[in-house]
Amino acid sequence: MAMDCELTAQWLTAFLKDEVVRRRGFDRGLVGLSGGVDSSLTAVLAARALGPEHVIGVQMPYRSSSPASLAHAELLAKQLGIRTVTVDISAAVDGYLKALGDDTTPLRHGNVMARLRMVTLFDLSAKYLALPIGTGNKTERLLGYFTWHADDSPPVNPLGDLFKTQVWRLAQHVGVPDEILSKPASADLVAGQTDEGDLGVSYASADLILYWLLKGLRREEIAALGCDVEEIDLVTSRLRGTHWKRRLPTVAMVSRTAIGESYLRPVDY
Amino acid sequence: MAMDCELTAQWLTAFLKDEVVRRRGFDRGLVGLSGGVDSSLTAVLAARALGPEHVIGVQMPYRSSSPASLAHAELLAKQLGIRTVTVDISAAVDGYLKALGDDTTPLRHGNVMARLRMVTLFDLSAKYLALPIGTGNKTERLLGYFTWHADDSPPVNPLGDLFKTQVWRLAQHVGVPDEILSKPASADLVAGQTDEGDLGVSYASADLILYWLLKGLRREEIAALGCDVEEIDLVTSRLRGTHWKRRLPTVAMVSRTAIGESYLRPVDY
Repeated sequence: MAMDCELTAQWLTAFLKDEVVRRRGFDRGLVGLSGGVDSSLTAVLAARALGPEHVIGVQMPYRSSSPASLAHAELLAKQLGIRTVTVDISAAVDGYLKALGDDTTPLRHGNVMARLRMVTLFDLSAKYLALPIGTGNKTERLLGYFTWHADDSPPVNPLGDLFKTQVWRLAQHVGVPDEILSKPASADLVAGQTDEGDLGVSYASADLILYWLLKGLRREEIAALGCDVEEIDLVTSRLRGTHWKRRLPTVAMVSRTAIGESYLRPVDY
Repeated sequence: MAMDCELTAQWLTAFLKDEVVRRRGFDRGLVGLSGGVDSSLTAVLAARALGPEHVIGVQMPYRSSSPASLAHAELLAKQLGIRTVTVDISAAVDGYLKALGDDTTPLRHGNVMARLRMVTLFDLSAKYLALPIGTGNKTERLLGYFTWHADDSPPVNPLGDLFKTQVWRLAQHVGVPDEILSKPASADLVAGQTDEGDLGVSYASADLILYWLLKGLRREEIAALGCDVEEIDLVTSRLRGTHWKRRLPTVAMVSRTAIGESYLRPVDY
Protein backbone atom coordinates (compact mmCIF):
# COMPACT_ATOMS: atom_id res chain seq x y z
CA MET A 1 0.00 0.00 0.00
CA ALA A 2 3.03 2.27 0.25
CA MET A 3 3.31 4.66 -2.68
CA ASP A 4 5.83 7.17 -3.99
CA CYS A 5 3.39 10.07 -4.37
CA GLU A 6 5.50 12.18 -6.69
CA LEU A 7 6.32 9.28 -9.01
CA THR A 8 2.66 8.16 -9.05
CA ALA A 9 1.48 11.68 -9.93
CA GLN A 10 4.03 11.83 -12.75
CA TRP A 11 2.97 8.43 -14.12
CA LEU A 12 -0.74 9.24 -14.02
CA THR A 13 -0.08 12.57 -15.74
CA ALA A 14 1.88 10.77 -18.46
CA PHE A 15 -0.92 8.18 -18.74
CA LEU A 16 -3.52 10.90 -19.33
CA LYS A 17 -1.39 12.68 -21.89
CA ASP A 18 -0.81 9.43 -23.75
CA GLU A 19 -4.41 8.16 -23.65
CA VAL A 20 -6.25 11.43 -24.24
CA VAL A 21 -3.96 13.16 -26.70
CA ARG A 22 -1.80 10.60 -28.49
CA ARG A 23 -4.07 7.56 -28.65
CA ARG A 24 -7.48 9.21 -28.90
CA GLY A 25 -6.62 12.47 -30.59
CA PHE A 26 -8.36 14.83 -28.17
CA ASP A 27 -6.71 17.95 -26.82
CA ARG A 28 -9.35 18.66 -24.20
CA GLY A 29 -10.66 16.75 -21.19
CA LEU A 30 -13.89 16.91 -19.19
CA VAL A 31 -14.05 16.09 -15.49
CA GLY A 32 -17.34 15.91 -13.59
CA LEU A 33 -16.51 17.91 -10.45
CA SER A 34 -18.46 16.75 -7.41
CA GLY A 35 -16.43 18.65 -4.84
CA GLY A 36 -15.10 15.34 -3.53
CA VAL A 37 -11.54 14.06 -3.37
CA ASP A 38 -11.63 11.67 -6.37
CA SER A 39 -12.80 14.20 -8.92
CA SER A 40 -10.55 16.88 -7.40
CA LEU A 41 -7.46 14.69 -7.77
CA THR A 42 -8.53 13.75 -11.30
CA ALA A 43 -8.89 17.43 -12.23
CA VAL A 44 -5.42 18.21 -10.86
CA LEU A 45 -3.87 15.38 -12.90
CA ALA A 46 -5.83 16.39 -16.03
CA ALA A 47 -4.72 20.02 -15.67
CA ARG A 48 -1.10 18.86 -15.39
CA ALA A 49 -1.42 16.54 -18.37
CA LEU A 50 -3.40 18.74 -20.77
CA GLY A 51 -2.84 22.24 -19.39
CA PRO A 52 -5.52 23.99 -17.30
CA GLU A 53 -6.85 25.81 -20.36
CA HIS A 54 -7.74 22.41 -21.89
CA VAL A 55 -9.71 21.03 -18.95
CA ILE A 56 -13.39 21.73 -18.34
CA GLY A 57 -14.84 21.04 -14.89
CA VAL A 58 -18.50 20.05 -15.15
CA GLN A 59 -20.79 20.68 -12.20
CA MET A 60 -24.04 18.73 -12.32
CA PRO A 61 -26.05 19.61 -9.21
CA TYR A 62 -29.45 18.20 -8.36
CA ARG A 63 -31.83 20.33 -6.32
CA SER A 64 -31.00 18.39 -3.16
CA SER A 65 -27.21 18.52 -3.66
CA SER A 66 -25.21 19.90 -0.77
CA PRO A 67 -24.17 23.57 -1.29
CA ALA A 68 -20.77 22.60 0.14
CA SER A 69 -20.25 20.24 -2.83
CA LEU A 70 -20.66 23.10 -5.30
CA ALA A 71 -18.49 25.45 -3.21
CA HIS A 72 -15.68 22.89 -3.00
CA ALA A 73 -15.81 22.23 -6.73
CA GLU A 74 -15.59 25.98 -7.39
CA LEU A 75 -12.69 26.32 -4.95
CA LEU A 76 -10.74 23.62 -6.74
CA ALA A 77 -11.48 24.95 -10.22
CA LYS A 78 -10.31 28.41 -9.15
CA GLN A 79 -7.10 27.02 -7.66
CA LEU A 80 -6.35 25.12 -10.87
CA GLY A 81 -7.46 27.88 -13.21
CA ILE A 82 -9.80 25.60 -15.15
CA ARG A 83 -13.09 26.65 -16.71
CA THR A 84 -16.33 25.29 -15.27
CA VAL A 85 -19.68 24.54 -16.89
CA THR A 86 -22.81 23.89 -14.83
CA VAL A 87 -25.77 21.79 -15.95
CA ASP A 88 -28.51 21.33 -13.36
CA ILE A 89 -29.90 17.81 -13.73
CA SER A 90 -33.06 18.45 -11.66
CA ALA A 91 -35.44 19.00 -14.60
CA ALA A 92 -34.27 15.85 -16.38
CA VAL A 93 -34.41 13.66 -13.25
CA ASP A 94 -37.76 15.03 -12.14
CA GLY A 95 -39.14 14.80 -15.70
CA TYR A 96 -38.23 11.11 -15.70
CA LEU A 97 -39.82 10.51 -12.28
CA LYS A 98 -43.00 12.28 -13.34
CA ALA A 99 -43.29 10.14 -16.49
CA LEU A 100 -42.74 7.07 -14.36
CA GLY A 101 -45.77 8.22 -12.42
CA ASP A 102 -45.13 6.54 -9.10
CA ASP A 103 -42.84 6.26 -6.14
CA THR A 104 -39.16 5.62 -6.35
CA THR A 105 -36.72 4.64 -3.60
CA PRO A 106 -33.64 6.57 -2.43
CA LEU A 107 -31.40 3.96 -4.11
CA ARG A 108 -33.24 4.08 -7.44
CA HIS A 109 -33.40 7.88 -7.30
CA GLY A 110 -29.65 8.04 -6.68
CA ASN A 111 -28.94 5.72 -9.60
CA VAL A 112 -31.09 7.83 -11.93
CA MET A 113 -29.14 10.92 -10.82
CA ALA A 114 -25.77 9.22 -11.34
CA ARG A 115 -26.78 8.04 -14.81
CA LEU A 116 -28.15 11.47 -15.79
CA ARG A 117 -24.70 12.85 -14.92
CA MET A 118 -23.20 10.31 -17.33
CA VAL A 119 -25.65 11.38 -20.04
CA THR A 120 -24.65 15.01 -19.44
CA LEU A 121 -20.91 14.32 -19.48
CA PHE A 122 -21.08 12.41 -22.78
CA ASP A 123 -23.30 15.05 -24.37
CA LEU A 124 -20.89 17.82 -23.32
CA SER A 125 -18.08 15.67 -24.68
CA ALA A 126 -19.69 15.92 -28.12
CA LYS A 127 -20.36 19.63 -27.65
CA TYR A 128 -16.83 20.62 -26.58
CA LEU A 129 -14.92 17.83 -28.38
CA ALA A 130 -13.44 16.98 -24.97
CA LEU A 131 -12.86 13.45 -23.62
CA PRO A 132 -14.65 12.51 -20.37
CA ILE A 133 -12.10 11.44 -17.75
CA GLY A 134 -13.21 8.95 -15.10
CA THR A 135 -12.79 9.31 -11.36
CA GLY A 136 -13.64 5.86 -9.94
CA ASN A 137 -11.09 4.45 -7.49
CA LYS A 138 -10.03 0.84 -6.94
CA THR A 139 -11.88 0.46 -3.64
CA GLU A 140 -15.29 1.43 -5.00
CA ARG A 141 -14.67 -0.60 -8.16
CA LEU A 142 -13.84 -3.72 -6.12
CA LEU A 143 -16.75 -3.23 -3.72
CA GLY A 144 -19.14 -2.53 -6.60
CA TYR A 145 -19.97 0.74 -4.82
CA PHE A 146 -20.89 2.68 -7.94
CA THR A 147 -23.74 2.95 -10.44
CA TRP A 148 -23.18 0.69 -13.45
CA HIS A 149 -22.88 2.60 -16.74
CA ALA A 150 -22.51 5.83 -14.76
CA ASP A 151 -19.43 6.52 -12.58
CA ASP A 152 -17.57 3.76 -14.43
CA SER A 153 -18.43 4.97 -17.94
CA PRO A 154 -15.72 7.48 -19.04
CA PRO A 155 -13.29 5.92 -21.53
CA VAL A 156 -10.13 6.82 -19.61
CA ASN A 157 -9.61 6.60 -15.85
CA PRO A 158 -6.40 7.55 -14.01
CA LEU A 159 -7.51 6.52 -10.48
CA GLY A 160 -8.99 3.06 -11.06
CA ASP A 161 -6.00 1.19 -9.65
CA LEU A 162 -5.61 3.37 -6.51
CA PHE A 163 -7.30 2.43 -3.26
CA LYS A 164 -9.32 5.22 -1.61
CA THR A 165 -6.72 5.77 1.11
CA GLN A 166 -4.10 6.14 -1.63
CA VAL A 167 -6.33 8.67 -3.40
CA TRP A 168 -6.45 10.72 -0.19
CA ARG A 169 -2.67 10.58 0.19
CA LEU A 170 -2.00 11.51 -3.43
CA ALA A 171 -4.61 14.29 -3.35
CA GLN A 172 -2.90 15.79 -0.30
CA HIS A 173 0.47 15.52 -2.02
CA VAL A 174 -0.69 17.43 -5.12
CA GLY A 175 -2.32 20.19 -3.09
CA VAL A 176 -6.06 19.44 -3.09
CA PRO A 177 -7.54 21.88 -0.50
CA ASP A 178 -7.96 20.73 3.12
CA GLU A 179 -11.72 21.37 3.05
CA ILE A 180 -12.02 18.62 0.45
CA LEU A 181 -9.53 16.25 2.06
CA SER A 182 -11.00 16.43 5.53
CA LYS A 183 -14.72 15.90 4.87
CA PRO A 184 -16.22 12.39 4.98
CA ALA A 185 -16.51 10.77 1.54
CA SER A 186 -20.08 10.88 0.24
CA ALA A 187 -21.85 10.32 -3.09
CA ASP A 188 -24.17 13.21 -2.05
CA LEU A 189 -27.15 11.41 -3.55
CA VAL A 190 -29.11 11.29 -0.28
CA ALA A 191 -28.83 13.88 2.53
CA GLY A 192 -26.50 12.80 5.32
CA GLN A 193 -25.20 9.81 3.34
CA THR A 194 -21.55 8.83 3.78
CA ASP A 195 -19.69 6.10 1.91
CA GLU A 196 -18.46 4.47 5.10
CA GLY A 197 -22.00 4.50 6.53
CA ASP A 198 -23.36 2.86 3.36
CA LEU A 199 -20.59 0.27 3.24
CA GLY A 200 -20.55 -0.58 6.93
CA VAL A 201 -16.76 -0.53 7.04
CA SER A 202 -14.13 2.23 7.05
CA TYR A 203 -12.02 2.80 3.95
CA ALA A 204 -8.89 2.19 6.04
CA SER A 205 -10.11 -1.32 6.92
CA ALA A 206 -11.68 -2.11 3.53
CA ASP A 207 -8.53 -1.12 1.64
CA LEU A 208 -6.32 -3.32 3.78
CA ILE A 209 -8.67 -6.30 3.47
CA LEU A 210 -9.00 -5.86 -0.30
CA TYR A 211 -5.24 -5.54 -0.62
CA TRP A 212 -4.70 -8.90 1.09
CA LEU A 213 -7.60 -10.59 -0.73
CA LEU A 214 -6.12 -9.59 -4.09
CA LYS A 215 -2.73 -10.89 -2.98
CA GLY A 216 -4.48 -14.26 -2.63
CA LEU A 217 -4.60 -14.48 1.18
CA ARG A 218 -7.35 -16.54 2.80
CA ARG A 219 -9.82 -15.35 5.43
CA GLU A 220 -7.85 -16.84 8.34
CA GLU A 221 -4.56 -15.42 7.12
CA ILE A 222 -6.02 -11.92 6.85
CA ALA A 223 -7.57 -12.23 10.32
CA ALA A 224 -4.16 -13.27 11.69
CA LEU A 225 -2.79 -9.97 10.34
CA GLY A 226 -5.18 -8.13 12.67
CA CYS A 227 -8.26 -7.51 10.47
CA ASP A 228 -11.76 -7.94 11.88
CA VAL A 229 -13.41 -11.19 10.75
CA GLU A 230 -16.87 -9.65 10.24
CA GLU A 231 -15.33 -6.92 8.11
CA ILE A 232 -13.37 -9.48 6.10
CA ASP A 233 -16.61 -11.36 5.40
CA LEU A 234 -18.46 -8.17 4.48
CA VAL A 235 -15.75 -7.04 2.04
CA THR A 236 -15.39 -10.55 0.56
CA SER A 237 -19.11 -10.79 -0.01
CA ARG A 238 -19.26 -7.41 -1.79
CA LEU A 239 -16.23 -8.33 -3.90
CA ARG A 240 -17.66 -11.69 -4.95
CA GLY A 241 -21.18 -10.39 -5.56
CA THR A 242 -20.16 -7.62 -7.95
CA HIS A 243 -17.94 -9.25 -10.59
CA TRP A 244 -20.62 -8.47 -13.20
CA LYS A 245 -20.08 -4.73 -12.68
CA ARG A 246 -16.43 -5.04 -13.71
CA ARG A 247 -17.11 -6.98 -16.91
CA LEU A 248 -18.61 -6.34 -20.29
CA PRO A 249 -22.16 -7.68 -20.82
CA THR A 250 -22.47 -11.39 -21.61
CA VAL A 251 -23.20 -12.10 -25.25
CA ALA A 252 -24.42 -15.45 -26.61
CA MET A 253 -21.76 -16.99 -28.86
CA VAL A 254 -23.11 -18.30 -32.14
CA SER A 255 -20.06 -18.19 -34.42
CA ARG A 256 -16.31 -18.74 -34.36
CA THR A 257 -15.77 -15.00 -34.68
CA ALA A 258 -17.62 -13.67 -31.64
CA ILE A 259 -16.56 -10.17 -30.59
CA GLY A 260 -14.30 -10.27 -27.54
CA GLU A 261 -13.88 -14.03 -27.84
CA SER A 262 -12.06 -15.09 -31.00
CA TYR A 263 -12.18 -11.55 -32.42
CA LEU A 264 -10.14 -9.08 -30.34
CA ARG A 265 -10.05 -10.80 -27.02
CA PRO A 266 -9.08 -8.14 -24.47
CA VAL A 267 -5.72 -9.83 -23.85
CA ASP A 268 -4.86 -9.91 -27.54
CA TYR A 269 -5.79 -6.37 -28.28
CA MET B 1 -23.48 -17.04 -42.87
CA ALA B 2 -25.73 -20.06 -43.24
CA MET B 3 -27.64 -20.84 -40.07
CA ASP B 4 -29.92 -23.57 -38.79
CA CYS B 5 -32.73 -21.30 -37.59
CA GLU B 6 -34.45 -23.80 -35.34
CA LEU B 7 -31.20 -24.87 -33.65
CA THR B 8 -30.11 -21.25 -33.20
CA ALA B 9 -33.45 -20.30 -31.63
CA GLN B 10 -33.15 -23.25 -29.25
CA TRP B 11 -29.59 -22.35 -28.25
CA LEU B 12 -30.41 -18.68 -27.66
CA THR B 13 -33.44 -19.69 -25.57
CA ALA B 14 -31.23 -21.99 -23.50
CA PHE B 15 -28.64 -19.21 -23.20
CA LEU B 16 -31.22 -16.78 -21.79
CA LYS B 17 -32.58 -19.33 -19.35
CA ASP B 18 -29.08 -20.11 -18.13
CA GLU B 19 -27.86 -16.52 -17.86
CA VAL B 20 -30.97 -14.86 -16.50
CA VAL B 21 -32.32 -17.54 -14.17
CA ARG B 22 -29.51 -19.88 -13.17
CA ARG B 23 -26.48 -17.59 -13.14
CA ARG B 24 -28.07 -14.31 -12.11
CA GLY B 25 -31.03 -15.48 -10.08
CA PHE B 26 -33.74 -13.46 -11.82
CA ASP B 27 -37.03 -14.97 -12.91
CA ARG B 28 -38.15 -11.99 -14.95
CA GLY B 29 -36.72 -10.17 -17.96
CA LEU B 30 -37.20 -6.67 -19.40
CA VAL B 31 -36.96 -5.93 -23.11
CA GLY B 32 -37.07 -2.39 -24.48
CA LEU B 33 -39.54 -2.76 -27.37
CA SER B 34 -38.87 -0.34 -30.20
CA GLY B 35 -41.14 -2.01 -32.75
CA GLY B 36 -38.04 -3.04 -34.72
CA VAL B 37 -36.82 -6.49 -35.64
CA ASP B 38 -34.00 -6.81 -33.06
CA SER B 39 -36.12 -6.10 -30.01
CA SER B 40 -39.00 -8.16 -31.44
CA LEU B 41 -36.78 -11.22 -31.88
CA THR B 42 -35.30 -10.69 -28.40
CA ALA B 43 -38.78 -10.56 -26.89
CA VAL B 44 -39.77 -13.80 -28.65
CA LEU B 45 -36.66 -15.56 -27.33
CA ALA B 46 -37.17 -14.15 -23.83
CA ALA B 47 -40.81 -15.27 -23.78
CA ARG B 48 -39.72 -18.78 -24.80
CA ALA B 49 -36.95 -18.86 -22.19
CA LEU B 50 -38.75 -17.32 -19.21
CA GLY B 51 -42.40 -17.74 -20.12
CA PRO B 52 -44.47 -14.83 -21.46
CA GLU B 53 -45.81 -14.03 -17.99
CA HIS B 54 -42.22 -13.31 -16.88
CA VAL B 55 -41.30 -10.87 -19.65
CA ILE B 56 -42.10 -7.16 -19.56
CA GLY B 57 -41.94 -5.19 -22.81
CA VAL B 58 -40.93 -1.58 -22.14
CA GLN B 59 -42.01 1.11 -24.58
CA MET B 60 -40.07 4.35 -24.26
CA PRO B 61 -41.42 6.78 -26.84
CA TYR B 62 -40.16 10.31 -27.37
CA ARG B 63 -42.60 12.92 -28.67
CA SER B 64 -41.14 12.63 -32.17
CA SER B 65 -41.20 8.80 -32.25
CA SER B 66 -43.01 7.25 -35.17
CA PRO B 67 -46.56 6.05 -34.27
CA ALA B 68 -45.80 2.92 -36.33
CA SER B 69 -43.03 2.02 -33.87
CA LEU B 70 -45.47 1.99 -30.96
CA ALA B 71 -48.10 0.11 -32.96
CA HIS B 72 -45.61 -2.57 -34.02
CA ALA B 73 -44.37 -3.00 -30.45
CA GLU B 74 -47.99 -3.42 -29.26
CA LEU B 75 -48.69 -5.90 -32.04
CA LEU B 76 -45.75 -8.05 -31.03
CA ALA B 77 -46.53 -7.88 -27.30
CA LYS B 78 -50.11 -8.95 -28.00
CA GLN B 79 -48.97 -11.85 -30.17
CA LEU B 80 -46.59 -13.04 -27.44
CA GLY B 81 -48.97 -12.37 -24.56
CA ILE B 82 -46.40 -10.31 -22.65
CA ARG B 83 -47.19 -7.34 -20.47
CA THR B 84 -46.08 -3.87 -21.56
CA VAL B 85 -45.10 -0.80 -19.60
CA THR B 86 -44.80 2.63 -21.20
CA VAL B 87 -42.53 5.44 -19.97
CA ASP B 88 -42.49 8.54 -22.15
CA ILE B 89 -38.94 9.94 -22.10
CA SER B 90 -39.91 13.36 -23.55
CA ALA B 91 -40.00 15.24 -20.24
CA ALA B 92 -36.62 13.90 -19.16
CA VAL B 93 -34.93 14.57 -22.52
CA ASP B 94 -36.47 18.02 -22.87
CA GLY B 95 -35.68 18.83 -19.21
CA TYR B 96 -32.06 18.06 -19.93
CA LEU B 97 -31.98 20.14 -23.11
CA LYS B 98 -33.58 23.09 -21.32
CA ALA B 99 -30.99 22.94 -18.52
CA LEU B 100 -28.26 22.81 -21.15
CA GLY B 101 -29.72 26.06 -22.41
CA ASP B 102 -28.59 25.99 -26.00
CA ASP B 103 -28.76 24.19 -29.28
CA THR B 104 -28.08 20.54 -29.75
CA THR B 105 -27.52 18.56 -32.94
CA PRO B 106 -29.59 15.64 -34.27
CA LEU B 107 -26.74 13.26 -33.39
CA ARG B 108 -26.37 14.55 -29.83
CA HIS B 109 -30.14 14.62 -29.37
CA GLY B 110 -30.40 11.02 -30.53
CA ASN B 111 -27.64 9.94 -28.14
CA VAL B 112 -29.37 11.64 -25.21
CA MET B 113 -32.60 9.81 -26.12
CA ALA B 114 -30.84 6.45 -26.39
CA ARG B 115 -29.14 6.95 -23.03
CA LEU B 116 -32.37 8.05 -21.34
CA ARG B 117 -33.86 4.75 -22.52
CA MET B 118 -30.98 2.96 -20.78
CA VAL B 119 -31.62 4.95 -17.59
CA THR B 120 -35.30 3.95 -17.78
CA LEU B 121 -34.60 0.27 -18.42
CA PHE B 122 -32.21 -0.01 -15.47
CA ASP B 123 -34.58 1.87 -13.18
CA LEU B 124 -37.46 -0.42 -14.14
CA SER B 125 -35.13 -3.35 -13.58
CA ALA B 126 -34.84 -2.29 -9.93
CA LYS B 127 -38.59 -1.64 -9.73
CA TYR B 128 -39.71 -5.00 -11.15
CA LEU B 129 -36.68 -7.09 -10.13
CA ALA B 130 -36.37 -8.01 -13.80
CA LEU B 131 -33.11 -8.29 -15.77
CA PRO B 132 -32.67 -5.99 -18.81
CA ILE B 133 -32.02 -8.08 -21.92
CA GLY B 134 -29.95 -6.53 -24.71
CA THR B 135 -30.90 -6.37 -28.38
CA GLY B 136 -27.71 -5.23 -30.15
CA ASN B 137 -26.70 -7.35 -33.15
CA LYS B 138 -23.20 -8.21 -34.40
CA THR B 139 -23.35 -5.87 -37.40
CA GLU B 140 -24.10 -2.74 -35.38
CA ARG B 141 -21.62 -3.78 -32.71
CA LEU B 142 -18.85 -4.22 -35.29
CA LEU B 143 -19.69 -0.99 -37.12
CA GLY B 144 -19.93 0.93 -33.83
CA TYR B 145 -23.44 1.92 -34.95
CA PHE B 146 -24.90 2.32 -31.47
CA THR B 147 -24.78 4.73 -28.55
CA TRP B 148 -22.07 3.77 -26.05
CA HIS B 149 -23.47 2.94 -22.59
CA ALA B 150 -26.97 2.79 -24.09
CA ASP B 151 -27.98 0.06 -26.57
CA ASP B 152 -24.95 -1.99 -25.49
CA SER B 153 -25.60 -1.72 -21.75
CA PRO B 154 -27.90 -4.62 -20.71
CA PRO B 155 -25.98 -7.36 -18.88
CA VAL B 156 -27.17 -10.21 -21.11
CA ASN B 157 -27.53 -10.13 -24.89
CA PRO B 158 -28.75 -13.05 -27.05
CA LEU B 159 -28.27 -11.37 -30.47
CA GLY B 160 -24.77 -9.92 -30.20
CA ASP B 161 -23.14 -12.62 -32.34
CA LEU B 162 -25.78 -12.57 -35.11
CA PHE B 163 -25.35 -10.38 -38.18
CA LYS B 164 -28.35 -8.20 -39.05
CA THR B 165 -29.31 -10.36 -42.03
CA GLN B 166 -29.26 -13.39 -39.70
CA VAL B 167 -31.50 -11.52 -37.26
CA TRP B 168 -34.01 -10.95 -40.05
CA ARG B 169 -33.93 -14.63 -41.03
CA LEU B 170 -34.29 -15.85 -37.46
CA ALA B 171 -37.06 -13.34 -36.71
CA GLN B 172 -39.00 -14.59 -39.71
CA HIS B 173 -38.48 -18.20 -38.61
CA VAL B 174 -39.87 -17.57 -35.11
CA GLY B 175 -42.91 -15.70 -36.42
CA VAL B 176 -42.19 -12.00 -35.95
CA PRO B 177 -45.00 -10.21 -37.88
CA ASP B 178 -44.41 -9.19 -41.49
CA GLU B 179 -45.06 -5.50 -40.77
CA ILE B 180 -41.92 -5.54 -38.59
CA LEU B 181 -39.83 -7.70 -40.92
CA SER B 182 -40.55 -5.72 -44.05
CA LYS B 183 -39.93 -2.14 -42.92
CA PRO B 184 -36.48 -0.55 -43.33
CA ALA B 185 -34.34 -0.76 -40.17
CA SER B 186 -34.23 2.57 -38.32
CA ALA B 187 -33.17 3.82 -34.91
CA ASP B 188 -36.19 6.18 -35.13
CA LEU B 189 -34.18 8.96 -33.47
CA VAL B 190 -34.57 11.39 -36.38
CA ALA B 191 -37.57 11.49 -38.76
CA GLY B 192 -36.92 9.63 -42.02
CA GLN B 193 -33.67 8.13 -40.73
CA THR B 194 -32.75 4.61 -41.86
CA ASP B 195 -29.77 2.55 -40.74
CA GLU B 196 -28.65 1.87 -44.29
CA GLY B 197 -28.90 5.59 -45.15
CA ASP B 198 -26.80 6.48 -42.09
CA LEU B 199 -24.22 3.80 -42.78
CA GLY B 200 -23.94 4.35 -46.53
CA VAL B 201 -24.01 0.61 -47.21
CA SER B 202 -26.73 -2.04 -47.22
CA TYR B 203 -26.83 -4.63 -44.44
CA ALA B 204 -26.54 -7.37 -47.05
CA SER B 205 -23.21 -5.95 -48.25
CA ALA B 206 -21.92 -4.90 -44.83
CA ASP B 207 -22.60 -8.33 -43.32
CA LEU B 208 -20.75 -10.12 -46.07
CA ILE B 209 -17.75 -7.79 -45.88
CA LEU B 210 -17.62 -8.05 -42.08
CA TYR B 211 -17.89 -11.83 -42.29
CA TRP B 212 -14.83 -12.02 -44.56
CA LEU B 213 -12.87 -9.40 -42.60
CA LEU B 214 -13.35 -11.40 -39.40
CA LYS B 215 -12.23 -14.53 -41.20
CA GLY B 216 -8.95 -12.69 -41.79
CA LEU B 217 -9.31 -11.97 -45.52
CA ARG B 218 -7.53 -8.96 -46.98
CA ARG B 219 -9.11 -6.13 -48.99
CA GLU B 220 -8.08 -7.60 -52.36
CA GLU B 221 -9.31 -11.07 -51.46
CA ILE B 222 -12.73 -9.74 -50.44
CA ALA B 223 -12.94 -7.68 -53.64
CA ALA B 224 -12.13 -10.80 -55.64
CA LEU B 225 -15.19 -12.44 -54.06
CA GLY B 226 -17.36 -9.76 -55.65
CA CYS B 227 -17.65 -7.07 -52.95
CA ASP B 228 -17.44 -3.39 -53.84
CA VAL B 229 -14.05 -1.86 -52.97
CA GLU B 230 -15.48 1.42 -51.71
CA GLU B 231 -17.86 -0.48 -49.45
CA ILE B 232 -15.02 -2.67 -48.18
CA ASP B 233 -13.05 0.47 -47.27
CA LEU B 234 -16.06 2.08 -45.60
CA VAL B 235 -16.79 -1.00 -43.49
CA THR B 236 -13.11 -1.50 -42.63
CA SER B 237 -12.77 2.10 -41.53
CA ARG B 238 -15.85 1.89 -39.25
CA LEU B 239 -14.61 -1.40 -37.80
CA ARG B 240 -11.12 -0.07 -37.05
CA GLY B 241 -12.33 3.27 -35.72
CA THR B 242 -14.70 1.85 -33.12
CA HIS B 243 -12.68 -0.72 -31.16
CA TRP B 244 -13.06 1.51 -28.07
CA LYS B 245 -16.83 0.96 -28.09
CA ARG B 246 -16.36 -2.80 -27.71
CA ARG B 247 -13.94 -2.55 -24.77
CA LEU B 248 -14.06 -1.60 -21.13
CA PRO B 249 -12.66 1.85 -20.29
CA THR B 250 -8.87 2.13 -20.05
CA VAL B 251 -7.62 2.33 -16.47
CA ALA B 252 -4.10 3.39 -15.47
CA MET B 253 -2.22 0.46 -13.92
CA VAL B 254 -0.41 1.32 -10.72
CA SER B 255 -0.17 -2.05 -8.94
CA ARG B 256 0.36 -5.73 -9.67
CA THR B 257 -3.29 -6.39 -8.85
CA ALA B 258 -5.06 -4.12 -11.34
CA ILE B 259 -8.70 -5.11 -11.98
CA GLY B 260 -9.08 -6.88 -15.32
CA GLU B 261 -5.30 -7.26 -15.66
CA SER B 262 -3.79 -9.49 -13.02
CA TYR B 263 -7.07 -9.69 -11.10
CA LEU B 264 -9.84 -11.45 -13.03
CA ARG B 265 -8.66 -11.02 -16.57
CA PRO B 266 -11.69 -11.65 -18.79
CA VAL B 267 -10.16 -14.86 -20.16
CA ASP B 268 -9.51 -16.27 -16.70
CA TYR B 269 -12.90 -15.51 -15.34
